[in-house]
Amino acid sequence: MTDLSTPSQTSLRARAARLADRPSFQNFILAVILFNAVILGLETSDEVMAQVGPLILLLDKICLGIFVIEIAIKLYGRGMDFFKRGWSIFDFVIVAISLIPATQGLSVLRALRILRLLRVVSVAPSLRRVVEGLVNALPGMGSVFLLMGVIFYIASVMATKLFGADFPQWFGTLGRSGYSLFQIMTLESWSMGIVRPVMEVYPFAWMFFVPFIMVTTFAVVNLLVGLIVNSMQDAHHEESNEQTNTYRDEVMSRLTDLENLIKAQNTPPKR
Amino acid sequence: MTDLSTPSQTSLRARAARLADRPSFQNFILAVILFNAVILGLETSDEVMAQVGPLILLLDKICLGIFVIEIAIKLYGRGMDFFKRGWSIFDFVIVAISLIPATQGLSVLRALRILRLLRVVSVAPSLRRVVEGLVNALPGMGSVFLLMGVIFYIASVMATKLFGADFPQWFGTLGRSGYSLFQIMTLESWSMGIVRPVMEVYPFAWMFFVPFIMVTTFAVVNLLVGLIVNSMQDAHHEESNEQTNTYRDEVMSRLTDLENLIKAQNTPPKR
Amino acid sequence: MTDLSTPSQTSLRARAARLADRPSFQNFILAVILFNAVILGLETSDEVMAQVGPLILLLDKICLGIFVIEIAIKLYGRGMDFFKRGWSIFDFVIVAISLIPATQGLSVLRALRILRLLRVVSVAPSLRRVVEGLVNALPGMGSVFLLMGVIFYIASVMATKLFGADFPQWFGTLGRSGYSLFQIMTLESWSMGIVRPVMEVYPFAWMFFVPFIMVTTFAVVNLLVGLIVNSMQDAHHEESNEQTNTYRDEVMSRLTDLENLIKAQNTPPKR
Amino acid sequence: MTDLSTPSQTSLRARAARLADRPSFQNFILAVILFNAVILGLETSDEVMAQVGPLILLLDKICLGIFVIEIAIKLYGRGMDFFKRGWSIFDFVIVAISLIPATQGLSVLRALRILRLLRVVSVAPSLRRVVEGLVNALPGMGSVFLLMGVIFYIASVMATKLFGADFPQWFGTLGRSGYSLFQIMTLESWSMGIVRPVMEVYPFAWMFFVPFIMVTTFAVVNLLVGLIVNSMQDAHHEESNEQTNTYRDEVMSRLTDLENLIKAQNTPPKR
Repeated sequence: MTDLSTPSQTSLRARAARLADRPSFQNFILAVILFNAVILGLETSDEVMAQVGPLILLLDKICLGIFVIEIAIKLYGRGMDFFKRGWSIFDFVIVAISLIPATQGLSVLRALRILRLLRVVSVAPSLRRVVEGLVNALPGMGSVFLLMGVIFYIASVMATKLFGADFPQWFGTLGRSGYSLFQIMTLESWSMGIVRPVMEVYPFAWMFFVPFIMVTTFAVVNLLVGLIVNSMQDAHHEESNEQTNTYRDEVMSRLTDLENLIKAQNTPPKR
Repeated sequence: MTDLSTPSQTSLRARAARLADRPSFQNFILAVILFNAVILGLETSDEVMAQVGPLILLLDKICLGIFVIEIAIKLYGRGMDFFKRGWSIFDFVIVAISLIPATQGLSVLRALRILRLLRVVSVAPSLRRVVEGLVNALPGMGSVFLLMGVIFYIASVMATKLFGADFPQWFGTLGRSGYSLFQIMTLESWSMGIVRPVMEVYPFAWMFFVPFIMVTTFAVVNLLVGLIVNSMQDAHHEESNEQTNTYRDEVMSRLTDLENLIKAQNTPPKR
Repeated sequence: MTDLSTPSQTSLRARAARLADRPSFQNFILAVILFNAVILGLETSDEVMAQVGPLILLLDKICLGIFVIEIAIKLYGRGMDFFKRGWSIFDFVIVAISLIPATQGLSVLRALRILRLLRVVSVAPSLRRVVEGLVNALPGMGSVFLLMGVIFYIASVMATKLFGADFPQWFGTLGRSGYSLFQIMTLESWSMGIVRPVMEVYPFAWMFFVPFIMVTTFAVVNLLVGLIVNSMQDAHHEESNEQTNTYRDEVMSRLTDLENLIKAQNTPPKR
Repeated sequence: MTDLSTPSQTSLRARAARLADRPSFQNFILAVILFNAVILGLETSDEVMAQVGPLILLLDKICLGIFVIEIAIKLYGRGMDFFKRGWSIFDFVIVAISLIPATQGLSVLRALRILRLLRVVSVAPSLRRVVEGLVNALPGMGSVFLLMGVIFYIASVMATKLFGADFPQWFGTLGRSGYSLFQIMTLESWSMGIVRPVMEVYPFAWMFFVPFIMVTTFAVVNLLVGLIVNSMQDAHHEESNEQTNTYRDEVMSRLTDLENLIKAQNTPPKR
């Protein structure tokens, strides 16, 4: 931000920024991302690893090196502006995760390396648009999500208090109850797996679970309806406005013509 | 209603009403609701209760005390008008439930105390709007619900008569049949869990269950379609009217201009 | 149809028709339908039958008698026109089923008596409208249903040929395959219950089942989309036309005014 | 393409093309397709095959012969243009599959013969339109499918790395993980069947599976929403344009009338 850079530095910086924007550079990165995804896929195969394990690991390291250089170029080229674009931060975090040394006990970090493939989303515009569409739909559903959270918290506390003592594996703690209720909301084995066994101890348990299913399903359905109506309205509004505008312009220009005609024809007789 | 209150009483009453409407008062209540929800959540943990159980119970009692005072203030401030707002009655009932002494055998009442968190809905306007939206959608679906009720009753009676003798655990009574049919409608284990075993005794049982699934699923789908069309139409109607009105006003004012122009230009020559 | 009836007969016939149309008559029939439904519900309870079984059976016979008389009145009053209304035929068939003597081995017929409650649909206008809406939506989905039938037949034949020998309980015959595929389409236990066991014998079985699930789910989704678009368009078309018409009428009348004004103002100077 | 055909050949070719287009010819083929489907259905019954097996196989061969002749006529009549219509290629491939000699080990090919029934789609226009509708909807969903593919690949690699060692039957290889994740996406036995057992070894497994379910379900829902909005917009656009055009034409012709009137009335006074 503070511009202490000498001219040569600035020009180097500008060249880095230009390089990062070049299509061939971006296509190269896209190719490396896809190649890296294949490498990480092969890493899951014991056979492949037994035969060419070291090569696979080396290729993965090279891919990571390329990503680090790419991020460095962009970071140098754009300066602090780099962190103003959401997708740049996304790329930065994903590459940064891979750089954390994966000591034993942190094998999860090794598994997270495949998240690099997500970078394909930030590189391919069509995918980026889909994800942005999904993300933009979220805030409109904020209130419903909040309400769902309240319902889940209430239901979890109640389930823990009511059934926790007899069914600790499903409703022993708040967390377990929440997980079990999420399973019940997805309708997976809700009756045969959970509610029927519970009803053998508490015959009226259905008075808790059946309304819970109805309320959450209804809320989810309303979420869906809201989503449909919103995106329909966006689409319709745009199109409709455009259409109406075109039409109005036509009518208006005709009315102007008429006005001019009246003016023109009425003026001569005055002379 | 009958205004027998002396001036000082009225002024006290007015002050109570003003206090209840103050944003800081409402925010305080919201904070207490959320704090109470956390307290009730901690109450489900045996560990926490073993260590600081008495404190948790005390804090819960204090929260309840605050709610009682709040309702009392509102009740005093607004008089009988308090019961004219649906959400006030909602608050009143939820707090009242907590005041019922929870003797043993009524442990369900203790579990119901978490329902106080529902008060967050009546306090937060955005949540209130979502719930009101959900509730307002219900009457339009009344007929379909009634039809579903008729279908369920018919199917329950038939299932009880046909399969009740051989499968008492699923179809022994009207109630059990209704529950089993609800499970089947949600498609949970309908075939592997219920219909295949039944078909081993009654090979033609699928002629009852498959149409039942089709009819109820179709009815639910139509409920959904109706919901979407309704909310779409509401949204569209509003917007469309507004847009058309704006447009009409423009055209109309242009036509008026034209009319005035004709009048103005045709008048001078007469002189 | 051939009018051979004497005047007195006609008048009797007209009185029967008038009686059948009277609201009090229809409300009475509605009450009997609901009362009969309760009676048939009580019949499923062994306890109730042990205590007041004969009374229940008698009340059911009385209800049936009332229905027979009702149909007879309508049949006499309306003559052959009775069979022109779909709902009348519906009522006729439902009552006729109850009159078939339920000898042993035909206990299914006894269970079908509860179908009489369906008559509530033909009596209550709001329910009738819902059912008519559901039925009217069917023809538009005819092609998709036909396509689903073709897909199911193809998949059943293939499943029977491929897996029938090893899994006779699921795919032994065309009928069993059809039922199992219906279960798979509803996603009930499709993997854990059926496809995983099949894959232990035929490791590539997923190449048949996964595409089957995708195709049928996609077809069902398109059915749903078609349903939504159709009913939306119906609703929108109606409303939109009305609105546009109102607007057009306004603009047109203004234009006519303008025309008259021009004519009126241009004529005087000619004198 | 190269027109080396003598006149007599051309006329024979033209006659073949005319024959193929004749409705009676197409109806005959449709009848053969349906008859063949019944024959192939009967072939699945051991009883029928034991009694009239050779007849069934003979009739199937005759049907196949008719299809070969039909394709030959069309191929001869239309020349290389035959391969320009997608549906013709579809017919050609389906018949060609049946001609591959089904040696043992290729019993799958015998099962594929029922695919001939799919030809009913290319013959019946209403079914053809439905399938074309379904296929046309696919490209618009391309990006979402691609995104789903990326998500599945990432999740498969992660699941294999994280859980593959302990649950080889579900997550042992990339392919198994993909299949298990597809099952989880369809919500079939995801919790009781897979995630709960996994959580007994890895208590935090839900942190992988619950977000996976949420993301994929949300993506599928958005696919559905996109589908609805698109087909709605298509339908609406068409109708709306038509309606607006009609209306605009009316207003425009009225304005033209007005213009002519002004011109006509203003001209005479000039004389």
